[in-house]
Amino acid sequence: MLRIYGDNRSGNCLKVKWTAEKLGLSYAWTDVDIMTGGSRTAEFLALNPAGQTPTVVLEDGRPLAQSNAILLHLAEGSALIPADAYDRARMFEWLFWEQYSHEPYVAVARFQMLYLGKPKSDLDEKIVSRGEAALARLELGLAETPYLVGDALSLADISLVAYTRVAHEGGFDLSAYPKVRAWIARVEADLGL
Amino acid sequence: MLRIYGDNRSGNCLKVKWTAEKLGLSYAWTDVDIMTGGSRTAEFLALNPAGQTPTVVLEDGRPLAQSNAILLHLAEGSALIPADAYDRARMFEWLFWEQYSHEPYVAVARFQMLYLGKPKSDLDEKIVSRGEAALARLELGLAETPYLVGDALSLADISLVAYTRVAHEGGFDLSAYPKVRAWIARVEADLGL
Repeated sequence: MLRIYGDNRSGNCLKVKWTAEKLGLSYAWTDVDIMTGGSRTAEFLALNPAGQTPTVVLEDGRPLAQSNAILLHLAEGSALIPADAYDRARMFEWLFWEQYSHEPYVAVARFQMLYLGKPKSDLDEKIVSRGEAALARLELGLAETPYLVGDALSLADISLVAYTRVAHEGGFDLSAYPKVRAWIARVEADLGL
Repeated sequence: MLRIYGDNRSGNCLKVKWTAEKLGLSYAWTDVDIMTGGSRTAEFLALNPAGQTPTVVLEDGRPLAQSNAILLHLAEGSALIPADAYDRARMFEWLFWEQYSHEPYVAVARFQMLYLGKPKSDLDEKIVSRGEAALARLELGLAETPYLVGDALSLADISLVAYTRVAHEGGFDLSAYPKVRAWIARVEADLGL
């Protein structure tokens, strides 16, 4: 059975859980507490030398890391990956953008406030402004379609909703982004959250 | 014809060029100078609202951004994407790791030194230490195989070689990473660089 090693407050870990559930895959969950060194044990580093969660162990015992890579592997051949080549490329575009231009700001602000207890006023200005830019980019991406890639739920939505739905825990105010708020509700309903 | 909008000193842009050339695709290249606002013009933002290079315009006129998403789209169906599902997942793992754990340190150190003229001693300690960790992770990934995913060149190698081969321009010394150095030479030969 698929085993997910993760932290259940982490969007990167939850997106793997939600994808498995949406696909009807059975899985076991092992909690890894990154705040107490859980991702730095010899056992965990043998699975993932980068020491990052989530990491999964597939049915055949082989490990895989990087949240979006895990999503792509689990969802292969399913409707969560668009069949059209250009739509699929746009899904990849969002997945890479998520890890480069969204997560390092929206998720990191939340990490500093929620995990480390920093007040909002102590957040780095660059993290705040780039997080706002990422949310504005999402709003633009949802201007004309209900989902990030057209009319159907894809991995792009699951990946990006993970930290966007808890952006307020990083001090971000979503009231300026009505399309984003409607999309969060839509994707949450699709995922049964 | 495929058109690539890019900066010819940028690894993210060059990896698109190399992939097109390796696949024998015809393309036109438009230089975008990010240092003089070339990625912030109305014309460029219409192609990519995130204002990031590279951006391509496909044969049918539709735009696509995010270097690794472009690579995946151009190389679809080619030998640069492993046919085996687990090998393909490991390629995705490297591609996402590249954008999250390698580029923001190895490429950013180089950007600050090469583009902005900062001396090495002024680099942020976090950028230097995480860049070193990324290079050590690559060395480990090449311990037993000639390429990052087994015995054949894949997009993982093209993506990761782009900034690794110029890591010295960001103050990194590759002499401690012999497997990485041999791999750079191997991939450069494969790409005709």
